[in-house]
Amino acid sequence: MNSSLLPQMSFPEDLKKLNKHELENLCAEIRKVLIDTVSGNGGHLASNLGTVELTAAIHRVFNSPYDKIIWDVGHQAYTHKILTGRYKQFHTIRKEGGLSGFTRPSESVHDAFISGHASNSVSAACGFAEAMRIDGNDSNYAVAVIGDGAMTGGMVYEGLNNASKGLNLIVILNHNDRSISKNVGALSKHLSKIRAREGYVRAKMALERLLSKVPLIGMPAVLTLKFFKDKFKSLLYHNMFDNFGFVYLGPVDGHDTAELEKVLNTAKAYKCPVFVHVNTVKGKGYRLAEESPGKYHGVPQFDAELGVGESSCADGFSGVFGQELLRLAELDKNICAVTAAMQYSVGLSEFAARYKERFFDVGIAEQHAVTFCAGLASMGKLPVFAVYSSFLQRSYDQIIHDAAICGTHIVLCIDRAGTVGEDGETHHGLFDVSMLSSIPGITLYSPSCYEELRLCLNAALYEDSGVAAVRYPRGKCENTEYEVNTGFLLKKGLPGKTLIITYGRIYAGALKAFEILNGSGNSADLLKLTRILPLNEEIADIAMRYKNIYFFEEGSGIAALLAEKLLIRGSSAVMHIRNIYEFVKQADTDSILRNFGLDCESIVKTVNEYENRP
Amino acid sequence: MNSSLLPQMSFPEDLKKLNKHELENLCAEIRKVLIDTVSGNGGHLASNLGTVELTAAIHRVFNSPYDKIIWDVGHQAYTHKILTGRYKQFHTIRKEGGLSGFTRPSESVHDAFISGHASNSVSAACGFAEAMRIDGNDSNYAVAVIGDGAMTGGMVYEGLNNASKGLNLIVILNHNDRSISKNVGALSKHLSKIRAREGYVRAKMALERLLSKVPLIGMPAVLTLKFFKDKFKSLLYHNMFDNFGFVYLGPVDGHDTAELEKVLNTAKAYKCPVFVHVNTVKGKGYRLAEESPGKYHGVPQFDAELGVGESSCADGFSGVFGQELLRLAELDKNICAVTAAMQYSVGLSEFAARYKERFFDVGIAEQHAVTFCAGLASMGKLPVFAVYSSFLQRSYDQIIHDAAICGTHIVLCIDRAGTVGEDGETHHGLFDVSMLSSIPGITLYSPSCYEELRLCLNAALYEDSGVAAVRYPRGKCENTEYEVNTGFLLKKGLPGKTLIITYGRIYAGALKAFEILNGSGNSADLLKLTRILPLNEEIADIAMRYKNIYFFEEGSGIAALLAEKLLIRGSSAVMHIRNIYEFVKQADTDSILRNFGLDCESIVKTVNEYENRP
Repeated sequence: MNSSLLPQMSFPEDLKKLNKHELENLCAEIRKVLIDTVSGNGGHLASNLGTVELTAAIHRVFNSPYDKIIWDVGHQAYTHKILTGRYKQFHTIRKEGGLSGFTRPSESVHDAFISGHASNSVSAACGFAEAMRIDGNDSNYAVAVIGDGAMTGGMVYEGLNNASKGLNLIVILNHNDRSISKNVGALSKHLSKIRAREGYVRAKMALERLLSKVPLIGMPAVLTLKFFKDKFKSLLYHNMFDNFGFVYLGPVDGHDTAELEKVLNTAKAYKCPVFVHVNTVKGKGYRLAEESPGKYHGVPQFDAELGVGESSCADGFSGVFGQELLRLAELDKNICAVTAAMQYSVGLSEFAARYKERFFDVGIAEQHAVTFCAGLASMGKLPVFAVYSSFLQRSYDQIIHDAAICGTHIVLCIDRAGTVGEDGETHHGLFDVSMLSSIPGITLYSPSCYEELRLCLNAALYEDSGVAAVRYPRGKCENTEYEVNTGFLLKKGLPGKTLIITYGRIYAGALKAFEILNGSGNSADLLKLTRILPLNEEIADIAMRYKNIYFFEEGSGIAALLAEKLLIRGSSAVMHIRNIYEFVKQADTDSILRNFGLDCESIVKTVNEYENRP
Repeated sequence: MNSSLLPQMSFPEDLKKLNKHELENLCAEIRKVLIDTVSGNGGHLASNLGTVELTAAIHRVFNSPYDKIIWDVGHQAYTHKILTGRYKQFHTIRKEGGLSGFTRPSESVHDAFISGHASNSVSAACGFAEAMRIDGNDSNYAVAVIGDGAMTGGMVYEGLNNASKGLNLIVILNHNDRSISKNVGALSKHLSKIRAREGYVRAKMALERLLSKVPLIGMPAVLTLKFFKDKFKSLLYHNMFDNFGFVYLGPVDGHDTAELEKVLNTAKAYKCPVFVHVNTVKGKGYRLAEESPGKYHGVPQFDAELGVGESSCADGFSGVFGQELLRLAELDKNICAVTAAMQYSVGLSEFAARYKERFFDVGIAEQHAVTFCAGLASMGKLPVFAVYSSFLQRSYDQIIHDAAICGTHIVLCIDRAGTVGEDGETHHGLFDVSMLSSIPGITLYSPSCYEELRLCLNAALYEDSGVAAVRYPRGKCENTEYEVNTGFLLKKGLPGKTLIITYGRIYAGALKAFEILNGSGNSADLLKLTRILPLNEEIADIAMRYKNIYFFEEGSGIAALLAEKLLIRGSSAVMHIRNIYEFVKQADTDSILRNFGLDCESIVKTVNEYENRP
């Protein structure tokens, strides 16, 4: 194998010059880079191994950046990065200052649109294609590449429904029959049914081979296609995408570049919305990943020879949540668990296995999940929706309209709350607090350790009414020895007028800072909030006793609520706030917390600098 | 016609005893009540006239409240209210303290779920049906009734995709080919194609007639149906709903109660998810509404003989917005306008007619709308999405993920911001300010008069970057004589330490209050905010000069942000806040503003009470 293709060539330009053999070698080379890099940095592996040939074919047939390639979710776009001038930086992927693990327009002109949250690509592509139409540009294309997992999000259907006639819009379905968990729902079955129609594939391919022999010169391509489409009408299977007015092509083998290029060229000829169905194997070319694509979806660092160790997804807070809910579900037959395609990572695998009839994986459908919970609750069930903070954003209206207005009792367990590290700005859970604080009647807990998470989950289930939520960070808790509660805790230091307030994970650092400050003769009391919404009036009463208040927040929203209460009371304190109110780039969590002044050392420094000012 | 049926009978129980003739009379009676009441109170007319027979049939075939009837949007549920024990209160509909114009579980045990925002019914019904399954209840049903307009919302597909086998779930499509504007998109065409298949209807009816002659005793109904389904397979048209795993029945005439009851009984027999396609005529039985269903969708008070006057939907702020955008679009070919099925009411009708190629009605698809705008903007267009405040809630994640993170320049024109009056808690625009304040980098204007709206729209388009938004209330502005700006305005009163702050519509009352207070010898300055996000540091600097700050807010969020800035500066002011942070029941807007202390008289009183305290 000629191993020098990647470093020597200029992509994507040189890609089109490769012959079949060179292209195969290139794909093998890319696979090796993917396995080596992801096993070293962590990241998304199986999905990227599945799209090597598809990406090569796309960049040989289309002309990026003039044609706009829009990757849904984007964790299938590593090959795209390698083939669009980022091979040399590829080893920096997901590292601080390095390449993003998703597409970012700020990173490359070839990243046409941002990705990270699922199901947005068709809508964005509609925008690109309509703009081309308005500009009278008929020679370029907007191409959305979307996995079948992302197809479970309702937003895709809004996009498909709005693809107007005559747009140069191509939607490529990367069908690997997997989102992160195994795919669910009727759509998945429908797609699999189509996928299985091998006879159909052969017929379509025959059609395209025929087409390739017809002299097109002097005959509009669309007419030619129409002629053949009519001729082969009985072979055309009516499916959902036909019904949305798309021309449906496929399914084709997503690891055969020649077939892929053929079908993509056919799609280009139509000059109208085309849906191309591509069958891929998630994890392709790496045996371990092919066998366990779920396990190799997102991986930490691992030894490429030995493979990933036993799944550690549900360790830490997620695991504690899962175990506690399991315990409660045994006692209370009304408890139901809901996940949006994240069964493993939110810690619900065991629940799913043991209480199949009360477990619901709804696909990447957070809107549905919340309203579905409200329906369950209206019948006396106790639904718990476990969801990542950043994906809960999709449910904002449903939380308000379908649950909060009626005070319907549902429980949200908000995982990955706070910074998440290497996944970057699309995945940090920095908005759930301010988002939920805008909704009247919500109860929100932010436990700082495992035992407190258990307490809060119990309170949310059995003490609160309406929408009750518990938020907890990605990863593990170093210390489990805290005094726990579901309200707040005031720790007294040396006598004085200084108060440190915080909540959630960063309490660990604040507690150490409290000890250091008082140990070195500086007075500071420490107030830990556990229930942050509604903000207890007593908390404001306590804060009224202090002259200097230091509020540390991983996110934002609660300091402002407290400030409001204090000013209503006529406080004359000075408030010092360190929080996160911006889109934070990828970096490891410790580094992010340090940068925003939320670690122990920064807390000590902030307090000391002001208290000991000249 | 026996006009005494409605007041004499007890519903829904007695409904099942009526013969065909009596039922027809009842429906005629209901239509008269609908026209009389809605012309008197204002409300939704055309959609309700279309569902009279359908509602009667549903309550004859199903057994509410044990069977759960879930009305999507709910403005088609007036007959449901009349037939479930609320005939005598029906004249109070949409009045303060009266019946809601939508379904409300707090109002009746027959209102199984809240309605107001579109497309949530299938998800809720899934929840009800799964709860029945968990409880081993096989004799009851969850029934979602949804218009074809609401079918354009992606959430419906998430629901359909999650309807698992064997659920007693029935989705009834009320197909009138209208949302508020004429329906759009591929789905609408698909549905119309099915609707037109008269031969298919006849075949299906033949199947059902056959079925009704088969002795069912001793033979499971599902088996019987399967037998006939197989036999008639060639008659069954494969459509989108088949593909989602639903049994598809219909289309049937939605004004023929006998046919309706037949198809609903058939649906019950299946004991699995069934989709029933019902064709109705929006405005049925009232000639003017049949001819102009859009005009008679939501109406103000009118004379039932003469009909509604010329459309006044786009008067007031909406009209001013529409005219100004039209003016700008003539000068700037990059401006595109987007609406989610609200072309008339947001003031875009003239834009739609004049700039067809730059106008996009995307259906009830607010998620798509925002991401589509981001796609347009990525190609250099200037997209403006005009949307009601309460419906923008559906786009929260898309605003963050698809626009704000990359700083993509899209403009949101947020209509119906603030209280909206009679539509009640699901429709008030009370959360857009706090929702948007949670997102970094957003610019938000809250103009208080027409001229200021024009200024702000220009600034949002041409001075700001990233996501820029302008919010304005429902209805008209009394005064257009204000000093206008896009930042803030400080009006000085008698020398003193008192400051009144406000923004938006209620500035009118605050200005009068300012004059009254100073006129009567009480000192008070007045600070009007126009750009409320980001909150200018200068505003906090100004507020630092005062000892008593009175903040009046129609909604909530900005007072807290200011309080935060003031406490950071070490303010020792006392802040008095009157805002709205709850779900507000229906009442006219003046009454709501008065109740929350936001009118002129309340402002004077609040200031005087504190300033002149003993």
